[in-house]
Amino acid sequence: MPELQFSNPIFAAYAASAATMVLLGVVTAWATVIQMMRHKGGFRAPEDLRRTPLNPQPRPDQTAPLEAVDRYRRIMQNHLENLPFFLVIGLLFVLTGPSVALARWLFAGYVVSRLLHFLSYASAQVHDIRATFWTIGSLILVAMSVRVLAAGVAAL
Amino acid sequence: MPELQFSNPIFAAYAASAATMVLLGVVTAWATVIQMMRHKGGFRAPEDLRRTPLNPQPRPDQTAPLEAVDRYRRIMQNHLENLPFFLVIGLLFVLTGPSVALARWLFAGYVVSRLLHFLSYASAQVHDIRATFWTIGSLILVAMSVRVLAAGVAAL
Amino acid sequence: MPELQFSNPIFAAYAASAATMVLLGVVTAWATVIQMMRHKGGFRAPEDLRRTPLNPQPRPDQTAPLEAVDRYRRIMQNHLENLPFFLVIGLLFVLTGPSVALARWLFAGYVVSRLLHFLSYASAQVHDIRATFWTIGSLILVAMSVRVLAAGVAAL
Repeated sequence: MPELQFSNPIFAAYAASAATMVLLGVVTAWATVIQMMRHKGGFRAPEDLRRTPLNPQPRPDQTAPLEAVDRYRRIMQNHLENLPFFLVIGLLFVLTGPSVALARWLFAGYVVSRLLHFLSYASAQVHDIRATFWTIGSLILVAMSVRVLAAGVAAL
Repeated sequence: MPELQFSNPIFAAYAASAATMVLLGVVTAWATVIQMMRHKGGFRAPEDLRRTPLNPQPRPDQTAPLEAVDRYRRIMQNHLENLPFFLVIGLLFVLTGPSVALARWLFAGYVVSRLLHFLSYASAQVHDIRATFWTIGSLILVAMSVRVLAAGVAAL
Repeated sequence: MPELQFSNPIFAAYAASAATMVLLGVVTAWATVIQMMRHKGGFRAPEDLRRTPLNPQPRPDQTAPLEAVDRYRRIMQNHLENLPFFLVIGLLFVLTGPSVALARWLFAGYVVSRLLHFLSYASAQVHDIRATFWTIGSLILVAMSVRVLAAGVAAL
């Protein structure tokens, strides 16, 4: 019986992948913060124009859109449309009892495709490159979801 | 003791529901892609105006807002504000040991309400229809969360 | 061996924290709804300008941006960039077998920091206050992720 514990190599592979994806989300959030601090702009809330230690010289245009910040916001949005689904369906996929090899390929494929998607988007590569990496991750989500759905329906 | 394994009918019902919701998220993402390709617009990043095999004849207005694309973006945003919460609280709800009947009603109610919300939004029904389906899903989230919270606090 | 059941005090602390965070997400969604109903505006979809029982006297400006509504949308967006990651990495952190004291501090710290972030943002405190609470939550995410990643990699 598959187990949710680190002595199960499939769970260990999932846990390492999941933690990497959470860290990718956190890194993206901090990249957004760094861009806002570097450019002293791209802020969002009206109260962000008030003088504070982190913003000693407010300017009215600090809440205007700023591409350097918006790029990381778009990356984050793409993460949000992907990572939470992976984090949960990956855990359920572990419980379907796949082979270690299959699980490792799918988890590694997802992690690598999302890291490459992040790097492609952050460095403003042409659309088709990041779309290719996005598609790989999306198909892996579908594969894992279909297997979990089949296992769930069969056991109803 | 409730178990996270497919031989537990409550977990099986959860897993089937969770996989269906992940697939709904993926379908919404692909619907957005299809609308962008059909209308050759609604793109987001400046670099998407560069000539590539998927965009052989770029036009400057391809990054302008496009309602047909934005509709699926709004649907996705609504998913993001709901599905990840269901995916996790549903799993924890399984561990509170509900009756099979209660669990099946809540999981099925959530899945059906979200599928109907998706169809209502995609076909541009009036606000009150999709709001009704949204409310059903939201109340199910509250019911499951309250039970998990009570079980957690009682065991602290 | 750490177990995902309520008799495990670490899991109980996680479950209570997770349910509280899901309820925070739901409360934020309803706060957005309440603001839209109070101001009869801040709507998003073109079809929301059609006459319905919930909107008996439509006006063309009801889909214009409205700060009172947008504030809760920004809060929700911030939740989405945080809560789903906590919900999953917290569960995996339980399985790394931390001490009860450490787990309780991290879970309570996350929950309190996010509740204070919500209150700071909703009441339009200056940026630095909500940024402080955001940072605490972010660092707790990193701490838990690093421990899960280490446990996963060690067991590969």
